[in-house]
Amino acid sequence: MSGERNIEIICVGNELLIGKTLNTNAHWLAKRITSLGLKVRRIIVVGDDLEEISSAIKESINRKPCFIIITGGLGPTFDDKTLEGVALGLGLKLQENKEALEMIRAKYERYVAEGRIRGYEMTPHRVKMARLPEGAKPLPNPVGTAPGVFLEYDGVKMVMLPGVPEEMKSIFDESVVPMMRKIAGNLTFYEVSLDVKNLPESELAPILDIVMHDNPYVYIKSHPKTSEKTSHLELHFSTTCEDSNTARQRIGRAVVQISEMIKKKGGTIKPVKG
Amino acid sequence: MSGERNIEIICVGNELLIGKTLNTNAHWLAKRITSLGLKVRRIIVVGDDLEEISSAIKESINRKPCFIIITGGLGPTFDDKTLEGVALGLGLKLQENKEALEMIRAKYERYVAEGRIRGYEMTPHRVKMARLPEGAKPLPNPVGTAPGVFLEYDGVKMVMLPGVPEEMKSIFDESVVPMMRKIAGNLTFYEVSLDVKNLPESELAPILDIVMHDNPYVYIKSHPKTSEKTSHLELHFSTTCEDSNTARQRIGRAVVQISEMIKKKGGTIKPVKG
Repeated sequence: MSGERNIEIICVGNELLIGKTLNTNAHWLAKRITSLGLKVRRIIVVGDDLEEISSAIKESINRKPCFIIITGGLGPTFDDKTLEGVALGLGLKLQENKEALEMIRAKYERYVAEGRIRGYEMTPHRVKMARLPEGAKPLPNPVGTAPGVFLEYDGVKMVMLPGVPEEMKSIFDESVVPMMRKIAGNLTFYEVSLDVKNLPESELAPILDIVMHDNPYVYIKSHPKTSEKTSHLELHFSTTCEDSNTARQRIGRAVVQISEMIKKKGGTIKPVKG
Repeated sequence: MSGERNIEIICVGNELLIGKTLNTNAHWLAKRITSLGLKVRRIIVVGDDLEEISSAIKESINRKPCFIIITGGLGPTFDDKTLEGVALGLGLKLQENKEALEMIRAKYERYVAEGRIRGYEMTPHRVKMARLPEGAKPLPNPVGTAPGVFLEYDGVKMVMLPGVPEEMKSIFDESVVPMMRKIAGNLTFYEVSLDVKNLPESELAPILDIVMHDNPYVYIKSHPKTSEKTSHLELHFSTTCEDSNTARQRIGRAVVQISEMIKKKGGTIKPVKG
C-alpha cells in the first residue's frame, strides 16, 4: 500500500472525539485530494494531547506516505498543541521562526488599522503560533492569524493547517494544491453513480465480482441506501487516470455490462445526477 | 493515555477516503460513547483493504483500549472485508458461525414471508456474512441482514457493526450500550457552552490558562466561530463525573470565574442554547 501517491490526514481536536463537531475538514480534504488524482490512504483523529499527536505522527511517517496533512491545534490557546506534538514525535526542537512572526505581526497591524482591535502586544500566546519545529516554513494564512506550516522530514512532506474550516481551505488551496499537482501530474479522478432498485445487495454481489474482474481499472462499490431489505442501493464507479476519454470509456464499459446483468435479474437502474 | 475507559473507533470504507461520504457514523458513536461517560481516544478511517484493516486493528489492540468499535465492511459484496481483516490482524481463522448463519437465514425467511423477495438460497456471498473470526459471537441486527460481531481478544472488547447508519445505531443501542454502561458505572458527561464576542482568542488564551488551573476537573476549549479577526467564539466547558450536582457546581464555578475575567477585558458573553 505504500506509494508516492498516498496521503494521510491527521485531525487534532477533542471536539471531534466527544462528537461535538462533525469532521467536515477531513471530508473536504479527502474529496479535494482525490479530485487532484492522489489517494487518501488513512484518516486519523486524535485529541489535544501531546503524546497522542506525537505518536500519530510517528506512526504515519513510518507508513511513508508522500504527504501528511494535519489539521487543528495551531492557535494561541493552551490546547493548541500540534506544533509541539509534531516536534516531539520527530525529535525536533521548536524554534521561533522570523518569517512566521512577521506574518503574525502583520496580521495584528492590519486588525488595528482596520479598527478591529485597539492595539496589540506580541504576548507569549501570540508568539507561540510562530514557534515552529526546526526546518519548518510558514505558509501564509489569507483569512486568519495562525500561519500554516510546511515541513519535510524523512522524504515525507508534512503540512499543518488551522482547524477553522475557512482558514484550512484557503491555505490548502493557495499553498498545498500546487505542491500536490506537481506529484499528480495529469492524473484525475472520475466517478459515476447509478441508482439500483429491486435487487438485494447479496444478489448483486456475484455480478459485482464478474464486472470488477472484467474491468480491472474501475472500482465499483455498492452503497445500500437504507438496509438490505428495501433493495435500494447506489452503485459507485470510479477510476483515476490521465485523460477523460479513457476514463469515460473505462467506466462506460463497466456500466453497460453491469446494467445488462442487473436487468436480467429483474433489477431497475437509473443514473444519479449531481 | 491507556486506561479502562478508553475507546477507539475504526471506520472501514473507501467512500470515506475519497470524500464521497461524510463520516456521520464516527460522529454519532463519539457523541453516544462520550455521553455514556467513556472516552473516545482515537478515530481511524481505512479503506476496503485487507492489509489496512488488519494493521489498523493490530495497532489499536496494542494501545490497549477497553473497547474497539469497527464500522463498515460486514455485507455480502467483495469489498466487505472487515471480518477477514480482523482475523488476519489477530492471527485467527474465519469459521462459519452457526448462530450467525441462523440469524441470516431467519432474515431471508422473513423477507420472503413479507413478499419482499420471491425466494432465496444461502449463496456463498450470503454465507460470507456468517464467517466470523474464531471465538466471535454474532449480535442481532434489528433492521438489516448482516449481524454485528462481538469478539474479546487480549482483554480488549471488539465490536464490528455494519456501515449502514440505521443498522449500526440499532445494534449499538441494543447490544453495545449495556456492555458500556457496566464499565462506565454512574459516570456521565456534562457540558455547557458560552458565546463570547469582542475578545480575540489570543487575549482569551491567558485567561483560559488561569481558569483551567483553578478548575482542574473542568475542560475548557475555545472554538473560533469563524477566523480570529472577527472576535467571535464559543467556549465549551465539560466534565465527566458521577452526579449531576457535582458536575453543575464544577462547571458553574468555572463559568462564573471566566465570565468576570472576560467582562473586565471588554468581552461580552451569553449562554448557548441547545
